[in-house]
Amino acid sequence: MKLLRYGPRGQEKPGLLDRDGRIRDLSGNIPDVTVDRIGMVRGLDPQRLPIVEGEPRLGVPVAGIGKFLAIGLNYADHAREAGLAPPPEPIFFTKAISCLNGPNDPVMLPRGATKMDWEVELGLVIGRRCRHVDEADALDHVAGFVLANDVSERHFQKALGGQWDKGKGCDTFGPVGPWLVTPDEVPDCQALDLWLDVNGKRMQAGSTATMIFPVAHCLSYVSRFVTLEPGDLLITGTPPGVGEGRKPDPVFLEAGDEMRLGIAGLGEQRQTVIPFALEVAAG
Amino acid sequence: MKLLRYGPRGQEKPGLLDRDGRIRDLSGNIPDVTVDRIGMVRGLDPQRLPIVEGEPRLGVPVAGIGKFLAIGLNYADHAREAGLAPPPEPIFFTKAISCLNGPNDPVMLPRGATKMDWEVELGLVIGRRCRHVDEADALDHVAGFVLANDVSERHFQKALGGQWDKGKGCDTFGPVGPWLVTPDEVPDCQALDLWLDVNGKRMQAGSTATMIFPVAHCLSYVSRFVTLEPGDLLITGTPPGVGEGRKPDPVFLEAGDEMRLGIAGLGEQRQTVIPFALEVAAG
Repeated sequence: MKLLRYGPRGQEKPGLLDRDGRIRDLSGNIPDVTVDRIGMVRGLDPQRLPIVEGEPRLGVPVAGIGKFLAIGLNYADHAREAGLAPPPEPIFFTKAISCLNGPNDPVMLPRGATKMDWEVELGLVIGRRCRHVDEADALDHVAGFVLANDVSERHFQKALGGQWDKGKGCDTFGPVGPWLVTPDEVPDCQALDLWLDVNGKRMQAGSTATMIFPVAHCLSYVSRFVTLEPGDLLITGTPPGVGEGRKPDPVFLEAGDEMRLGIAGLGEQRQTVIPFALEVAAG
Repeated sequence: MKLLRYGPRGQEKPGLLDRDGRIRDLSGNIPDVTVDRIGMVRGLDPQRLPIVEGEPRLGVPVAGIGKFLAIGLNYADHAREAGLAPPPEPIFFTKAISCLNGPNDPVMLPRGATKMDWEVELGLVIGRRCRHVDEADALDHVAGFVLANDVSERHFQKALGGQWDKGKGCDTFGPVGPWLVTPDEVPDCQALDLWLDVNGKRMQAGSTATMIFPVAHCLSYVSRFVTLEPGDLLITGTPPGVGEGRKPDPVFLEAGDEMRLGIAGLGEQRQTVIPFALEVAAG
């Protein structure tokens, strides 16, 4: 199943994508898409659900995200471009949940930003509490997979004290979606192609096959330190091609730039970069 | 007002502390203590509310904490004991909300912990959205103040990749309470004494007067990077006397140790350290 949430920010309705790529409305079945309600719509015949006409805005495809954690430097070739040795064990940090953004919503330059960058990533949404889960059992705790852009400001992330959270949780820095794809449609999460274009130029291209720490390992590892609750979101690192690693010179995002990104089977995102504005809503 | 939540974990009821130190029940007035409901109980005569008999467990004094952020190295003398220069601007990191704990609940050693430590801190709960707030206006956005213990595992925090979140968000590492104290009862949040004892020995003693960055500055600063929403919790750093800074040798917590801590006007906490257990509930 490909679950989604459509409509204006804060008023999203639940839906799913049918086999022809049309949005079907789930509001007659569940009040919202949350991980505890996936079982309630499994087995429904999408062809019998109301078609949603037009092209509504898409929101984050699952409501109730409590924590938004992220693995750093999880692709050997990305670590190399960042000038860092592959970490001996996973690094993780937190993205503020107030940065969550629909997959095609504009992404806003923070005030004072000089090094805004992109990171296409595979994310997973937790379905069952994870506390000291074994790697062999870890994927049984996943409710679904998502595409995410781990938008980052490198100066804030690295030059203002060294705790990355500062450059990871700015408003709009967490585009997620378009869909929450249930695990039955992702037979091997370590064989997914990822890509990201800026202004039509391919910047990132990779495969989850080259992760240093596979998804199940990341989940197991994080669960030794932080308990993951149903609805929590973990994104798993980015392949090479981020702006700060470009040769001969780094490239950073400016107002008007357009990002497009995708993961095979998980859909695509498209974001326009907009200037900083005080009055824009967060969350 | 001193608002609180009492009862078993996950079933807490709203209450307040009357002038004689007795708990009064608010369940007839509000379903829970959340920042948007404080106005609904302001002006009530506590003496007309039902007395809660006995000594119930206390929970985190406010429900609906979305983000739990923390300032690091915010007291000059604490930075010195940690062997670090005072930061030129505030450092912040994230504590996982799944680590939130009642003020007197046991604190659990994580599996493999060797350097578990204490940090008494002043916390504030956000009442109105903070995004690029000026320092002069920052305190107007505070719904109330709390006592917190920023329990930390130093090896996880510092030796496993350098992102502090790993040693800050373990289950039970976030005791908060006993009360959410409204700002009218905290005339000067930069003149509060803080203290913490371990096994009856005074380890930390300080005053918020010696903060490098005052509370209003911290709030204003964080709001430039991460938007703080109503209900978010920000804790503001710890005075000297943490275990890792003890001379001649560091001291860390072991099962059976007892922490007691307090801030003038914000109440006291008492926690027993218990061994790691797989079956203990989080959150």
